[in-house]
Amino acid sequence: MKKGQISIKEIAKLSGVSVATVSRVINNNGRFSEETRKKVLDVIEKYQYNTNAVAKTLRMNKSQTIGIIVPDINNEFFSTIVHGVERYFFERGFSTFICHTDKSPEKERAYIKSLDAKMVDGLVCISGQEEIDDSLLSRNIPIICIDRRPKTRKNISIIESDHFDGGYKATKHLIEKGCRNIIVLTKQSNLSPVNDRIKGYIQALSEYSYTFDPSNIIRIPNHQQFNVDLTKEVIQKEINQGKKIDGIFATNDWLALNAVMALNELGFNVPGNVKVVGFDDDTIAKYFKPSLTTIRQDIKKIVEQASSLLYQMLTNKEFAADKKHIIVPVTLIERDTS
Amino acid sequence: MKKGQISIKEIAKLSGVSVATVSRVINNNGRFSEETRKKVLDVIEKYQYNTNAVAKTLRMNKSQTIGIIVPDINNEFFSTIVHGVERYFFERGFSTFICHTDKSPEKERAYIKSLDAKMVDGLVCISGQEEIDDSLLSRNIPIICIDRRPKTRKNISIIESDHFDGGYKATKHLIEKGCRNIIVLTKQSNLSPVNDRIKGYIQALSEYSYTFDPSNIIRIPNHQQFNVDLTKEVIQKEINQGKKIDGIFATNDWLALNAVMALNELGFNVPGNVKVVGFDDDTIAKYFKPSLTTIRQDIKKIVEQASSLLYQMLTNKEFAADKKHIIVPVTLIERDTS
Repeated sequence: MKKGQISIKEIAKLSGVSVATVSRVINNNGRFSEETRKKVLDVIEKYQYNTNAVAKTLRMNKSQTIGIIVPDINNEFFSTIVHGVERYFFERGFSTFICHTDKSPEKERAYIKSLDAKMVDGLVCISGQEEIDDSLLSRNIPIICIDRRPKTRKNISIIESDHFDGGYKATKHLIEKGCRNIIVLTKQSNLSPVNDRIKGYIQALSEYSYTFDPSNIIRIPNHQQFNVDLTKEVIQKEINQGKKIDGIFATNDWLALNAVMALNELGFNVPGNVKVVGFDDDTIAKYFKPSLTTIRQDIKKIVEQASSLLYQMLTNKEFAADKKHIIVPVTLIERDTS
Repeated sequence: MKKGQISIKEIAKLSGVSVATVSRVINNNGRFSEETRKKVLDVIEKYQYNTNAVAKTLRMNKSQTIGIIVPDINNEFFSTIVHGVERYFFERGFSTFICHTDKSPEKERAYIKSLDAKMVDGLVCISGQEEIDDSLLSRNIPIICIDRRPKTRKNISIIESDHFDGGYKATKHLIEKGCRNIIVLTKQSNLSPVNDRIKGYIQALSEYSYTFDPSNIIRIPNHQQFNVDLTKEVIQKEINQGKKIDGIFATNDWLALNAVMALNELGFNVPGNVKVVGFDDDTIAKYFKPSLTTIRQDIKKIVEQASSLLYQMLTNKEFAADKKHIIVPVTLIERDTS
């Protein structure tokens, strides 16, 4: 008999019980002795490794798997988190299924449903959405959101960097380095980390009694990793409209690197004429020439906190009732662009 | 009644048939009318969206999901492939579960098993191993291997770049640019792409009647994206031992970029004293200063070929019998390092 080919009828025959009893054992429903249970499970284990895994999932409502929803695996910050969470759970006997949403709301919903249908025990979600829809999940499984705060849903815990303090520290640093006309370079998005970083920028301006001008928040559409021409165009447009720029706080390192390249091509010296601070401390920040001043997110701590929290929720039902919001500190790393 | 909480007994009651009949329908085994089948499935669909998905998988042996095994998501070549395959299948109604093996043989085996247990319909495998063990899979599902050729297994199709021609083109280019002492910089690995690239290098040397010296294949252990100090150490050691180097063929772009930075720190001018060619044409190759001469892999074509082949194998049983080996051409991209 081939593996995975056995039917309930055959299981019944081989274990010497009725089909109905096999059904009861598989569904863990109704009366049967521990002896019967063992006999049936032994046959299932012997003859169908694979269907057994699915049957076990059905029976136990546990699959020793978790799901990770990630909006962009080409983003080093996200891929490092995915890497770390996967490693943590593999060491504890869990498989991790990664689903890539490509920043699409439709995909995010579809993948949350898929992972639920595959009976994952828990979810780590780096959501691209403002809300996570409760109705996508048929079971009340623990969810940890990293980096981004969805507005609703009761049973979600959140781990994120102190984005507000990051924006504040970056701006304060630029002011202390003598910048008087600091713009923010960011993406078109309404995600909580970006909003918090901008709030930190505004707070720093206000502490130094500088007026906040909303037109200084420059949003670049469809930003890819390298997009020097587009960045140049955007900065050129601002300068043409009479804006004086001596400082740029970019809300990620790639925006910052593109800004430095664009400024160079426009004839500005960095940090001589314009100082630039990024966000994330991606590996390239250190190796780029000039090396990039940036706000470092503590990915190691984010991974540790998120993984151990989810693991506790999976293994300790009481713990699962708590809803946590953990904020991880950030650090300014001063390099050559400021 | 809560979703996902219904038992086989309750399904039987609600659809007016016996428990044994429900089992037969779920297992698609034995005698029952189409009417009975419909009644049972309607109840399952109405009351248990989620268990239904698992039950349907059990019944149909189809789950509308595929798995991707990827050794390193921080590698742009791999993450772009994953991205492309996921997009192709999502458009055709399939969910993709990505499993990250971190180059570990143990993880690769565990994840192939996990994906099999979750009843994925097919696998795309970027294997870090020399062999894919048949016994890991309980079902005979189609597998496409990208980039790396496992030695065994019958039912595997392979899509890969013309690595041999890449190594040949890179070396020929360096020779034509005047290099006489060309070393290969590579990782410690016995994977087929690297071996083929080195064979191409040897072929080009032989065509120009240069002697191949095996000590010119320099293997750097544990290479990360940025590893300038280690690269410097390795190159310095070769020079101290009397090796003259005027050309480097690096088997990926990151090795090449690190080599350029290391050479600069050692006081060599690139391309004046030493010319460097990479492999992959990662995005950074174009933006690095100096921009990098490299061998471009046609990722778009690799994704198209792999995805459409797997899709045909999933939807056309006859097609599935064929075993294909598709080799995608590569191109030399000449830039500032040569």
